[in-house]
Amino acid sequence: MAQRIRINVGGTLFITQQETLTSYPNTRLARMNTKMTEYDATDGTYYFDRDPECFASILSMYRHRELHFPKYVCAMKMRNEMQFWGIPQSYMSRCCWKTFYEVDEDIDILDKLAVSSDGKASDVESKNFKERVWVFLDDPSSSQAAKIWHCFYLLVVFVSCLVLCLETVEKFRVKPFIRHVSSNCAQHMPTTHRKVAIKMASSYCLDASPAILYTEAACVVFFTVELLCGLVICPSKKIFFKNFLNAVAVIATVAMWCCLIFEFNKEILASSNRMVYLHAALKFASVLRVLLFFRLAGIFNSLQVLLQALKTSARELLLLFVCVVIATMVFGVIMYYIEFPSESSMNNMFISMWWAVITLTTVGYGDVVPSTILGRLVASVCSVLGLLLLALPVAIVVSNFAEYHRRSKDKQRHLLATCGLRQKYMPRNNIGTILK
Amino acid sequence: MAQRIRINVGGTLFITQQETLTSYPNTRLARMNTKMTEYDATDGTYYFDRDPECFASILSMYRHRELHFPKYVCAMKMRNEMQFWGIPQSYMSRCCWKTFYEVDEDIDILDKLAVSSDGKASDVESKNFKERVWVFLDDPSSSQAAKIWHCFYLLVVFVSCLVLCLETVEKFRVKPFIRHVSSNCAQHMPTTHRKVAIKMASSYCLDASPAILYTEAACVVFFTVELLCGLVICPSKKIFFKNFLNAVAVIATVAMWCCLIFEFNKEILASSNRMVYLHAALKFASVLRVLLFFRLAGIFNSLQVLLQALKTSARELLLLFVCVVIATMVFGVIMYYIEFPSESSMNNMFISMWWAVITLTTVGYGDVVPSTILGRLVASVCSVLGLLLLALPVAIVVSNFAEYHRRSKDKQRHLLATCGLRQKYMPRNNIGTILK
Amino acid sequence: MAQRIRINVGGTLFITQQETLTSYPNTRLARMNTKMTEYDATDGTYYFDRDPECFASILSMYRHRELHFPKYVCAMKMRNEMQFWGIPQSYMSRCCWKTFYEVDEDIDILDKLAVSSDGKASDVESKNFKERVWVFLDDPSSSQAAKIWHCFYLLVVFVSCLVLCLETVEKFRVKPFIRHVSSNCAQHMPTTHRKVAIKMASSYCLDASPAILYTEAACVVFFTVELLCGLVICPSKKIFFKNFLNAVAVIATVAMWCCLIFEFNKEILASSNRMVYLHAALKFASVLRVLLFFRLAGIFNSLQVLLQALKTSARELLLLFVCVVIATMVFGVIMYYIEFPSESSMNNMFISMWWAVITLTTVGYGDVVPSTILGRLVASVCSVLGLLLLALPVAIVVSNFAEYHRRSKDKQRHLLATCGLRQKYMPRNNIGTILK
Amino acid sequence: MAQRIRINVGGTLFITQQETLTSYPNTRLARMNTKMTEYDATDGTYYFDRDPECFASILSMYRHRELHFPKYVCAMKMRNEMQFWGIPQSYMSRCCWKTFYEVDEDIDILDKLAVSSDGKASDVESKNFKERVWVFLDDPSSSQAAKIWHCFYLLVVFVSCLVLCLETVEKFRVKPFIRHVSSNCAQHMPTTHRKVAIKMASSYCLDASPAILYTEAACVVFFTVELLCGLVICPSKKIFFKNFLNAVAVIATVAMWCCLIFEFNKEILASSNRMVYLHAALKFASVLRVLLFFRLAGIFNSLQVLLQALKTSARELLLLFVCVVIATMVFGVIMYYIEFPSESSMNNMFISMWWAVITLTTVGYGDVVPSTILGRLVASVCSVLGLLLLALPVAIVVSNFAEYHRRSKDKQRHLLATCGLRQKYMPRNNIGTILK
Repeated sequence: MAQRIRINVGGTLFITQQETLTSYPNTRLARMNTKMTEYDATDGTYYFDRDPECFASILSMYRHRELHFPKYVCAMKMRNEMQFWGIPQSYMSRCCWKTFYEVDEDIDILDKLAVSSDGKASDVESKNFKERVWVFLDDPSSSQAAKIWHCFYLLVVFVSCLVLCLETVEKFRVKPFIRHVSSNCAQHMPTTHRKVAIKMASSYCLDASPAILYTEAACVVFFTVELLCGLVICPSKKIFFKNFLNAVAVIATVAMWCCLIFEFNKEILASSNRMVYLHAALKFASVLRVLLFFRLAGIFNSLQVLLQALKTSARELLLLFVCVVIATMVFGVIMYYIEFPSESSMNNMFISMWWAVITLTTVGYGDVVPSTILGRLVASVCSVLGLLLLALPVAIVVSNFAEYHRRSKDKQRHLLATCGLRQKYMPRNNIGTILK
Repeated sequence: MAQRIRINVGGTLFITQQETLTSYPNTRLARMNTKMTEYDATDGTYYFDRDPECFASILSMYRHRELHFPKYVCAMKMRNEMQFWGIPQSYMSRCCWKTFYEVDEDIDILDKLAVSSDGKASDVESKNFKERVWVFLDDPSSSQAAKIWHCFYLLVVFVSCLVLCLETVEKFRVKPFIRHVSSNCAQHMPTTHRKVAIKMASSYCLDASPAILYTEAACVVFFTVELLCGLVICPSKKIFFKNFLNAVAVIATVAMWCCLIFEFNKEILASSNRMVYLHAALKFASVLRVLLFFRLAGIFNSLQVLLQALKTSARELLLLFVCVVIATMVFGVIMYYIEFPSESSMNNMFISMWWAVITLTTVGYGDVVPSTILGRLVASVCSVLGLLLLALPVAIVVSNFAEYHRRSKDKQRHLLATCGLRQKYMPRNNIGTILK
Repeated sequence: MAQRIRINVGGTLFITQQETLTSYPNTRLARMNTKMTEYDATDGTYYFDRDPECFASILSMYRHRELHFPKYVCAMKMRNEMQFWGIPQSYMSRCCWKTFYEVDEDIDILDKLAVSSDGKASDVESKNFKERVWVFLDDPSSSQAAKIWHCFYLLVVFVSCLVLCLETVEKFRVKPFIRHVSSNCAQHMPTTHRKVAIKMASSYCLDASPAILYTEAACVVFFTVELLCGLVICPSKKIFFKNFLNAVAVIATVAMWCCLIFEFNKEILASSNRMVYLHAALKFASVLRVLLFFRLAGIFNSLQVLLQALKTSARELLLLFVCVVIATMVFGVIMYYIEFPSESSMNNMFISMWWAVITLTTVGYGDVVPSTILGRLVASVCSVLGLLLLALPVAIVVSNFAEYHRRSKDKQRHLLATCGLRQKYMPRNNIGTILK
Repeated sequence: MAQRIRINVGGTLFITQQETLTSYPNTRLARMNTKMTEYDATDGTYYFDRDPECFASILSMYRHRELHFPKYVCAMKMRNEMQFWGIPQSYMSRCCWKTFYEVDEDIDILDKLAVSSDGKASDVESKNFKERVWVFLDDPSSSQAAKIWHCFYLLVVFVSCLVLCLETVEKFRVKPFIRHVSSNCAQHMPTTHRKVAIKMASSYCLDASPAILYTEAACVVFFTVELLCGLVICPSKKIFFKNFLNAVAVIATVAMWCCLIFEFNKEILASSNRMVYLHAALKFASVLRVLLFFRLAGIFNSLQVLLQALKTSARELLLLFVCVVIATMVFGVIMYYIEFPSESSMNNMFISMWWAVITLTTVGYGDVVPSTILGRLVASVCSVLGLLLLALPVAIVVSNFAEYHRRSKDKQRHLLATCGLRQKYMPRNNIGTILK
């Protein structure tokens, strides 16, 4: 019978044989000998002050020539022990990769959640007045007042967007100006563009009712003041413009000012068609105010987590995009040639691609519909395949977000537990016994 | 070689070194000394009557300077042991948060499920006749008879709703009254409202066929009697009206009575246009009877769990709402300016927002459709993004509900196991050996 | 210091104190004494030949006054041990219900999968000729020949359905008969039904082209022969008609025969309008042949698992139904009153309910669409809520099916492993060492 | 008291009784006797150098007569130990199948992921120039240059597809030829086909604008050169054509050449109607270029994983197909007979099936819509059932893909960990202690 080697790891005794240990010669266990300080000659046992549970798995590796991961141990602890015993991670057998690398995912997510809450202004410790105002304007979670201020800001954004909408409704406009513009405009323009220009002019330049105009003006003034405050008080211009939403706010506010000036000086618009196009461009820029709604992410944590999850799902979003593009092209092209000889509404391939994408996403407007039997068969395949093809990457993004959501909840739970606020799940009967 | 410390926890021996234990000086293990009652001098071992599995993890913390959670242990037990050994929850290392805080979710859900079944009238122990009737009317799960009674109640609700529907169908109406009302009405009204008023009057006041009217009357009487019984017998009015459905029932019943009175005295309606509007308002209120269907939740447990899950998913529903609103505004505004110069049907921004929301939810009616190439490109992006953006919060709500559903099933299983009704999964060969 | 009690369970030593054990007086451990046969006086230890892992958890219960379930142990084993130690299942603490009752789900599913494959004719052991033919006709998985036969049967079903479709296409009909019927028919009928009757007659009675008719006749003969064989050979009539598909086949075949007779004797149809209605009813019955496609479940295991999962998801399907009905009624009624004064197409409440259900399921035909601003707002809410409300029960059914699918896969894996066919995942280096 | 048997497995002592062990007589444990080399007479104990954790479970089997699987052990290790102790896999009790066979799924997936990356040209070790070019052309992941080359290739494919689209747009065509063709064509053709032929000719043969034509020509030349290079350099023709995309490229390129020849010699087209049909066929073949987009899978790993997952989900895709087909037939047939007497647009059964499939997938174009009350009821059921029925198989495919995606991520993590690139998750405080 082979000689038994006794190893005591953290109090648990393991017994094995010499030939078992030599199967991986370059590891700590294989090089063990009786001259080591860990060897206790009195009972012929090696004593190690390490974790016995991980060691059990590691010793099993010497027996089976495969390293399996005990699922209940945290992978980080196992890696630590593997380093101690001199076993590289590449020894981990294939069947255990799933559980062994799972923790990396969690840590990646917690890292990213930490980063997104790190860059905040409120982290600065001792603050003077300027810094405190900056924190107030920049971080809604810094104080109750800041939260209320941001809610008010969002309200103004909402009013401003509402104004944008109401402007376009017939009822809220007074129409004296239209004839003058249209006649004047039309003369300076090439015939082909005339119709569009008149429509543009008639819509953009119409006297919005005064109530609308003054509300708009009030919003612009508010945005301007808020931006100037931020710009003056911010520690550096770089930090200010690194925030995507600040840059958007600056562009939108400038555009809104220009639009207002046009609105009060409509003669400029009538002067030339260049002005009409300039006005249209400014109008487009001023629409960016809609994006200011994303300031909500500062107050509403779930939205921030959602945006974070989307940001880190870049590969999956790309996959979604690629799937949609390839499927659209394939089905669009096939459908065009199938429907071509019939009296279908698919006159060119772009229309059939439009049909394909609207079918793939199961929106199905019904403005373009195949009319041949073969076309309908392909459309059926397209709609089922669309369901499937879109579900695949969407499911991955969804599961990413779900992970972020759950980790973010865990983080909040940990913060609460650490702060001692959440004692309710503590077992009650033992509270008296702590450190008695 | 360092001196070995022997700790016997619940029979399992752990061996470590003094310097390992001193790494966290403020804990019970660091302050251990040979004068403690737990120290047994005969074999130089500390004896603790605690759980050995949790202690293994805690001792590992002293070695690795990181506290990892052994996944197989219930987190509640671990917290209990951590309290005993004087280790705060904040020591738990980041990689184990997932498993360590998972149990809180389960307990939260079981708490909420317990609450929803706690407020029931049937919990009162010794009941007099009044209380027993109250239980009968309030809690369908209290007895078989109560269940049948509630089914009958739901049937009446269904009949009442059917009457509501049939009233609106042309066939079930007799039309002698219309000319009188319309001519009479029209005179008293401003010209602009005339058309609507006539249509309203013609629809609301038309003689519904007698069968319909008498069925309606029967339903109203039934509801009235049921409500009065409940009101008289209920221990306190506060409890009665705290139940949302009772409040709804009261409003709906009163409105139904008023409508019936109008129905039998149509001359009042013809007298003035104020009466027409009053009648319309009452009609709206009487429609609330549809909500009485939610009484089904009392009988049908799954529906109750669903409503409970929705109630606790408030944050996720808010996220869904915010996602939809932001995406609608962004896409609506963009689409309006893109489609504006074309001959599109998007005349104002509200229509383009209507288009956006119908596309985002992939409903796609097709009544408003982009017609330009750029517009269609944006529509494609909108439909894919809609799929994605709605899937994210919906998935979280769905997973919440799934958790509630599973916990509710577990609860039922536990109740069955406790009541001894579910012995079928008990191993058979050992039943004889219990407590022999 | 309290006296230590030494318990050796399956070789693992546990040490505890007397007062710990007496906390649950009615259990086996509390009643332990030195006179038991398990007590070994030589080393003052109780020896039990039980599982040490489960005992660790049970002993912890005496210490913490809460029974926690060690997640890695199979719950069935734990229950077994709990019985031995005299601990009822109701002691299991709430936080561990999830893992403790999880296994019941798996066993329920495996039970149902076993039942669905148990009732098969092929289980009979020693078979005579009649039984063998019965197995051949009833169970496609009994032999390769039976599989081919069932594929051929499905092909005939497909041809028969194709015939059903082609009959309705204008091209495949010859039209001499129509005038005779329509004129004849119309005379005997009340004026209001005339139009429908003519259309019915013109469609049902038209001479289908001979190719169609003879194919139909061939199919009918095939079905008849198959059914007669089954009926003659089947051990009992009860078993034969208990199979839902056999009953369907009988009805469909009889109806097909009658239809064929009508087809060849069209004068009967022209004789009276009763005959026209009888013919229509028979036509409806003969359509049931479509359901014969479900015979595919016998060959295609996944379809069988799907049907099984749907069958056991009855509660969730009911929930889905209830959700759809309540949401349809609520939104339908609200929308009717909102859209009522406008020039909408929602003339009665059934149309607005039709709109509601088509919007809730995000189908969105666009035939009925709200036109007022408020109506569109409600429609937006309806579409988002529909997405959510339908997703909830569907997700539960889906997860049920996924469980069935996975368990069915596990079962196949086990069968393969048991049959020794699936050795590829066996570790190779140890195969030689088995039972040496 | 029964005699106790002491078994020491890997250092852990197990104590049991002889009668316990004999319950499974054909296993290694039952045949144990004191003459074995494993028996140590000095302390009356059997010593085995095996895994103690697995042995605990196996010994429990002798006690409970059921083999339960300890969830934390890797199933592969357990199988290894079961082989050693002579216990067949079929002994595994039903409640543990789930965890016991779970690992097979993971290994199956990793196998398939390995196969898909095995067949690559880049695996060849020592390469000569020809081989290196082959690797460069075949495997984009072999080098940075190969990646860039493949991106450029995809760009050309994109341009080629764009040309395909632009050709079909009215604007990009010059129209002198149309009259000649149509008049000429029409003479040679049967009257019924004339209209289609003219439309075909007018579309296919129109002078595309020269810019379009020359871009097309450039693309064709590029594809030809790339294919010839590949064909010449490839080690064997079999390998070349085994790649599905190469075969597609060859067909598409040949067809594009022919089309170009037709384009520059339009007189041939006018000569006979056979030529028109030939041209149409060639046009169809040249459309296959769209499939070349799948070359993207070589660069974009996620797409490859998606295709792999779809390939192995064949059974589930078949199930999806069967579900759709059966549901379409059932609902199509029912709806036809319901809607038949009304003035519906469902004239034949193929149209009602088209309606059914478009409703089942919730696309809902709205071109065919039921108009009767009963028809709408069936449509409601159809849309809800469609949602459910499609969700079931799609969910399985999605979960398959999710598994593939996660395993593919694990694989990448393992590669990184093995390469030593990913040290960031290594615990830092212990790095110095490795193998000191």
